[in-house]
Amino acid sequence: MNINNFSNPLHLNKVKVNDNYFNEYLNLIKTVVIPYQYNALNDLIPGAPKSYCISNFIKASSVCSSLKAGIPVPVFPVDKWEYKETECSFNSFLGWCFQDTDAYKWIEAASYVLVNEKNDALKKQVDDLVDLICSAQLENGYLDTLYIINDRSKIFSNLKDRHELYCFGHLTEAAVAYYNSTGNNKLLNAAIRFADLICDYFGDNKNQGYPGHEIAESALVKLYYITRNEKYINQAELFIKRRGTKPYYFDIERCYNRTDNSIDYEYNQAHMPAVKQNEAVGHAVRGVYLYRGMAEIAKVKKDDCVFNACKNIWNNIVNKKLYITGGIGSTAVGEAFSFDYDLPNDLAYCETCASIGLAMFSRRMFEINPISSYFDVFEQALYNTVLASMGSDGKSFFYVNPLEVLPVASKKDERKNHVKTRRQKWFGCACCPPNLARFLSSIGEYCFSENSSTLFVNLYIGANAQFTNGCIDVQSNYLSSGNVILYVKPNKPFKLALRIPAWCDNFTINCDYEMINGYAVLSINKNTNVEISFDLKVKLIRCSNLVRANIGKVAVARGPVVYCAESIDNCENLQLLKINPNGDFVFNENGTIIADGFVEQPDESLYDEYKPVPLKKCKITLIPYNSWGNRGETEMSVYLRV
Amino acid sequence: MNINNFSNPLHLNKVKVNDNYFNEYLNLIKTVVIPYQYNALNDLIPGAPKSYCISNFIKASSVCSSLKAGIPVPVFPVDKWEYKETECSFNSFLGWCFQDTDAYKWIEAASYVLVNEKNDALKKQVDDLVDLICSAQLENGYLDTLYIINDRSKIFSNLKDRHELYCFGHLTEAAVAYYNSTGNNKLLNAAIRFADLICDYFGDNKNQGYPGHEIAESALVKLYYITRNEKYINQAELFIKRRGTKPYYFDIERCYNRTDNSIDYEYNQAHMPAVKQNEAVGHAVRGVYLYRGMAEIAKVKKDDCVFNACKNIWNNIVNKKLYITGGIGSTAVGEAFSFDYDLPNDLAYCETCASIGLAMFSRRMFEINPISSYFDVFEQALYNTVLASMGSDGKSFFYVNPLEVLPVASKKDERKNHVKTRRQKWFGCACCPPNLARFLSSIGEYCFSENSSTLFVNLYIGANAQFTNGCIDVQSNYLSSGNVILYVKPNKPFKLALRIPAWCDNFTINCDYEMINGYAVLSINKNTNVEISFDLKVKLIRCSNLVRANIGKVAVARGPVVYCAESIDNCENLQLLKINPNGDFVFNENGTIIADGFVEQPDESLYDEYKPVPLKKCKITLIPYNSWGNRGETEMSVYLRV
Repeated sequence: MNINNFSNPLHLNKVKVNDNYFNEYLNLIKTVVIPYQYNALNDLIPGAPKSYCISNFIKASSVCSSLKAGIPVPVFPVDKWEYKETECSFNSFLGWCFQDTDAYKWIEAASYVLVNEKNDALKKQVDDLVDLICSAQLENGYLDTLYIINDRSKIFSNLKDRHELYCFGHLTEAAVAYYNSTGNNKLLNAAIRFADLICDYFGDNKNQGYPGHEIAESALVKLYYITRNEKYINQAELFIKRRGTKPYYFDIERCYNRTDNSIDYEYNQAHMPAVKQNEAVGHAVRGVYLYRGMAEIAKVKKDDCVFNACKNIWNNIVNKKLYITGGIGSTAVGEAFSFDYDLPNDLAYCETCASIGLAMFSRRMFEINPISSYFDVFEQALYNTVLASMGSDGKSFFYVNPLEVLPVASKKDERKNHVKTRRQKWFGCACCPPNLARFLSSIGEYCFSENSSTLFVNLYIGANAQFTNGCIDVQSNYLSSGNVILYVKPNKPFKLALRIPAWCDNFTINCDYEMINGYAVLSINKNTNVEISFDLKVKLIRCSNLVRANIGKVAVARGPVVYCAESIDNCENLQLLKINPNGDFVFNENGTIIADGFVEQPDESLYDEYKPVPLKKCKITLIPYNSWGNRGETEMSVYLRV
Repeated sequence: MNINNFSNPLHLNKVKVNDNYFNEYLNLIKTVVIPYQYNALNDLIPGAPKSYCISNFIKASSVCSSLKAGIPVPVFPVDKWEYKETECSFNSFLGWCFQDTDAYKWIEAASYVLVNEKNDALKKQVDDLVDLICSAQLENGYLDTLYIINDRSKIFSNLKDRHELYCFGHLTEAAVAYYNSTGNNKLLNAAIRFADLICDYFGDNKNQGYPGHEIAESALVKLYYITRNEKYINQAELFIKRRGTKPYYFDIERCYNRTDNSIDYEYNQAHMPAVKQNEAVGHAVRGVYLYRGMAEIAKVKKDDCVFNACKNIWNNIVNKKLYITGGIGSTAVGEAFSFDYDLPNDLAYCETCASIGLAMFSRRMFEINPISSYFDVFEQALYNTVLASMGSDGKSFFYVNPLEVLPVASKKDERKNHVKTRRQKWFGCACCPPNLARFLSSIGEYCFSENSSTLFVNLYIGANAQFTNGCIDVQSNYLSSGNVILYVKPNKPFKLALRIPAWCDNFTINCDYEMINGYAVLSINKNTNVEISFDLKVKLIRCSNLVRANIGKVAVARGPVVYCAESIDNCENLQLLKINPNGDFVFNENGTIIADGFVEQPDESLYDEYKPVPLKKCKITLIPYNSWGNRGETEMSVYLRV
């Protein structure tokens, strides 16, 4: 790695987003999503599954008070992933074992909103929640309501399947966001106390454990950046370097006497040393969270070995395991990556969190090596799977983001039970909606990256930003006309590096530039209005013929936005449609594309002698994938026959 | 229904099969399969999962002795489907709860072999096993080793999920076969004693239960035909007419207080009254066993209402739920039928037993209404899924018969865990191999059907048969040249009805005939040599475009035999192949077909702008689907792109 290439993001308080396309989303996050999710955490959404999140903190706080007062506290089992009201004591922890993180993600999202906006009511909600959380922390710094409420004696006894270190990670991400946004260090101090306990418990010659669900690695890196205390980065590195080494910690933890090799820890990315991994495997969200942490460690520690592992894994994802929508995780079994080129459209898992994690991982890779493909993938995930996961009402969400939906299959075929035909109000396991909220509300942080010589423009989102060498105002019509104007005011000469997306064959810039690693690099010496125009022509995209599901088919894309057909606009049985590759593709003001195509008549008999199929000309209406499912239950398909 | 159309099969002792194609299979059954399966039942196959079948009978026999002697007998749980050695007492029942049936099916197969062949060693094995079985019967006639060994007090307490009535059914089918073959009525008497207990326990105003896994219905019909005691047919009719009526018996049995409608009994075909069902749903084997029983009742009772339900269900299967290979059951979840037109190739379940059951059901439908489509479907199941399920060694078997196999998917994708790439030595749940043995060893029984005026030739299998109006000798080259000669000697004039398969567009017969319901009907007044020649040209078959998995693809068939491609003959990634519909199809002596086609180069990038794919001409080697997987692990696909 070349440290001269390193770059750092602009912090959110340096970037003010004001974008034709995203304003609507950001406004929805602020006015609908965050209030709605606050109600969800408080179990106040009629008809939605209960979260129990806040009530668990209240119970844990009460336990802490009792412990301090020397009052005996009951013990409940900690043997499950999910604690159901029908099976558990009302006084015990309820919900999924990682339920705390929903509060942390909500605080993170709210904190990002508070960066640029005075909102006393929201601020008070956050402050009150922070107070509640801090009151639930044990004296030694431990903070996970499942174990605090149910059984203090079992803390850190099941790293593989419970989520204490995962909860720590989200606590810390929230704490850092809250501190950066408000200057209030109360939650940050709680996170540091927990981190200190973790460093003490899992230090060099101490317990050799590592997280079953990764994210603590990234959290420790964040604490390092904010405190500059090296013990945090060292603990993160320990977690990564230990991971998957033999004897397997998860074997030891489970007193598992390994006599056969049928059990491995691919699900947890702990089947082999992390630094030797070169294929993305197992639970997709865990995977990308680990890889993100590895990239962060690689950068801080300038560790080529870890960076190479990250490159191999990233290439494996992008070349063999990535849906065109930026989705990852081909199988609902273990919510996991599947084998190379296994990308079924109808059985896809493509969890929202996984695409967010992939975007975060890609962004960290970019910070080490500024090549355009990292933000190409970021953009692919953002404009498709991530945005698709939220309904236009801001109150309904997809957890799973398939590329093909047939309502009857989702109802009658248990293999497709996970594929919902409509966005849900909430989920018992609700990791995705608050993750989406925190991601979108901090989108400004991903737009730019800088080092001493260069400002990189990675996303063409309208924004005003202050950076070391000047300031920039981006006026963007990236998705509508492809035209972007950047008003640049330097303090001193610098390079402006503009990402040229891989989807764009033709672009013009009104200044001289040099292409480096997919970026058009301009020398800026004075106030300059840089005008860039991307050709947004509609394209047919073929998927590799090694992907069985897509052979003979194409997807339609315009810029980074992937399109899909819904039966509500076309016909039942979308497989009867064929795109005419030589036909017209008309882009309309409302965002739809009308394509020339053909339709087959449905066959009446199940089997018959083959003869060429008569085709009838038709117009095929396509809408952005990210807006599918907003008009009731309907068939949907990204790929159509060609 | 028109009772003048009714026909009856020729019993096996009237039919001696001697067929170029089937002799090899029948010889394999006799010399390899039956001895091998006897060893399997006795847990003597190294490396194969244990059956425990015989050892359960030994334990049950010992329990019976103890009970008679007044010696106390221990009690074990009866709460599982499968009783594993690692979890259960060595003295208790082991294996699947329906394990007894494997012995019964083996006896049935062996009995069919003994019809036409003196084989003292085999006879002794059967006799000894019959003695063992009879020694395990309780004094009241009850005979199911799970409950006899583990808990006599729980008999008939869980009809839904245990298989006592299913075991009774197979006991009876074995007993009838054994009696017909050997004249020995020992097992038949045991079956009758059990049947009498059942009629007593489940009679008209008694316990309102019915089988969770059907087959007792058919068994009772068989007992009726052999004893002419109407109580058996009445009990069978009761089981069918009660099925699915409200209040649900399975609710009552489980003390289930029905407050929501989320639970139904589709899995057991008990979600609505059987006679009102018009769609094949639930566990596919259970389904076709029920439908077969319904058709039998419809015939004996001349019940139009039941027959109409059978017709609706049969049409639903054949028009919307049938694989081209004669397989049924599109999903491994519940080993079940899926919704209409959901016929995935790679996720197919297509259990061998289900295709056997479909053949049996179709045959019973034919006996009521002699139209050719019933035996078209029988033939489709027989020549494809059924024959494919056994390896060329006679010692390895498929339970699941998919239409597309990718070895890496079976290994790495848990959704395809059920899809084996090689036939297995045996199965813990080993219903299929002995079912195959009993079915193939009685294939002669399915060739002909007769009534007072007509002899129907349904299968063109070489055989000599005696029937009411004469005798017939069939010399068949049905699958090789398409030529069949039938030497007919009448006692008195009769009609000879020859099935003209739906796959055959052109045929010639050297006599005058009239086409009735897909049969060429000849008047036979004197000794006649009927020569029929079927045009066996290779055909490309398209599946309905309502089946998403097969759109843009074709299957290749020659006569009733469906072909497939294996990568061992062609290339990796069979999806890269395309059949040229205008090319040549050369049929070779060894049974393969060489087709003109094209192959695509594998794409290197995962996504790229679409352009027409360059195709290279190639020859595609196809082999009969029923012989796939005999040459090691390889990709296989029935459907190829066109």
